[in-house]
Amino acid sequence: MKEIVAIIRRQKLHETKTALDGLGFSPMSILSVSGRGKQKGFIGEVDPVMDEFMLDEADVDVRFIPKRLISIVADDADVPKIVETIIKTNNTGYPGDGKIFILPMTDAIRIRTSEIGLSAIK
Amino acid sequence: MKEIVAIIRRQKLHETKTALDGLGFSPMSILSVSGRGKQKGFIGEVDPVMDEFMLDEADVDVRFIPKRLISIVADDADVPKIVETIIKTNNTGYPGDGKIFILPMTDAIRIRTSEIGLSAIK
Amino acid sequence: MKEIVAIIRRQKLHETKTALDGLGFSPMSILSVSGRGKQKGFIGEVDPVMDEFMLDEADVDVRFIPKRLISIVADDADVPKIVETIIKTNNTGYPGDGKIFILPMTDAIRIRTSEIGLSAIK
Repeated sequence: MKEIVAIIRRQKLHETKTALDGLGFSPMSILSVSGRGKQKGFIGEVDPVMDEFMLDEADVDVRFIPKRLISIVADDADVPKIVETIIKTNNTGYPGDGKIFILPMTDAIRIRTSEIGLSAIK
Repeated sequence: MKEIVAIIRRQKLHETKTALDGLGFSPMSILSVSGRGKQKGFIGEVDPVMDEFMLDEADVDVRFIPKRLISIVADDADVPKIVETIIKTNNTGYPGDGKIFILPMTDAIRIRTSEIGLSAIK
Repeated sequence: MKEIVAIIRRQKLHETKTALDGLGFSPMSILSVSGRGKQKGFIGEVDPVMDEFMLDEADVDVRFIPKRLISIVADDADVPKIVETIIKTNNTGYPGDGKIFILPMTDAIRIRTSEIGLSAIK
C-alpha cells in the first residue's frame, strides 16, 4: 500500500480529480499548501485567499505559490497508472507543474467498519 | 515508530483529542482538509469556512467534505490502542466517519533538546 | 530518499527557509497547522487568523498553537545537515520550539519532465 502525494497547480485540481475518478480512485484528502520548488516562486502567482490565510508579519517577504496537495492511498499495483494519470493531467511543460511523491504506507482502516488494508480504501 | 493519521468529522475533533489525552497521547498536528471518500461528498456537509478558504474558480463544481486531519506519532507498541480509541470515538455507523492511516516513521527529534527517537515524542 | 517534516513556530518560518536556501534546499510545501505538544498549548499564542480558519463550535474550548509545517524531500545523505540547520534556526530553549520528523520516501517524480528519484528533487 502506498500514499501518492501530488502537489499541483490549483487550477488543475478539478481536472485531476475527474481523471482519477475515471480510473476509480478518489483522493483521500486535499489541502491548500504553499509550494516552492526549484524556481522559488513567481510573484505573479500569489493568491489573495492564501495570503489572507498564510501571511503574517513573519512571512511577509517570502514568495509563496499557492498549490493544491492531493493524497491518494492505493495498492502498490495501482501506483503506476495513478502516477501516469497525474502526469498526463498536470504536465503543461512550464515550471511549476508540481511533483509527485510516493510514500510507503503500513496500513489503512475504515473507521465505520473497522475494515483493514486494501478493503479499507476500495 | 509510526505516524497515525486520522481523517475524521470536524465535529469529532474535540472528543477525539480528549480521548487521546486520556491515553496520554497528544496530536502532533491538526489540519483542516477536504476529504472525499467512496461516497464522493455530501453537498449538505459543505462548510462555509472551508469554502471561503478552499474554493476558487477552479474548484467551484467539486463537492468537498471539510474534515479534520490529526497526526499522532507513537511507538509501534502504542498503535493498537490509539487506533482503537479513534475508532471508538469516531464510529457513528454512517458513511463519512473517516479513515485511519498508519505510516512508517524513521525518526523524530525534539528541536529544543535535540532528543531523538521515542524520548522526542513522550 | 526521505521526507523531513518540521513543525516550527510561525515566527521562524522565514529564517528557516532562508537557512535551508543557503544549504541549497527549498521546502517542497508549507502548511499552516495547529500543533500541540507535551505542554498542550499556551492560550497566549492563539492566532486570530488560525482561529477564524480552524475554530467552529466543535473546537471552541480546545487550545491551539498555530504552527508552520514545512516539508523537505532530500537524499538520505543530506538529512543530517538539514536537521542540524532546522535545529540551529529554531532552538530558542523554550517549550514550543517544535519537532522534526523523518519519514521514508519511496520515490519522487517531477511532473513536467517525468524525472524520477533524486533528479526530481534537485
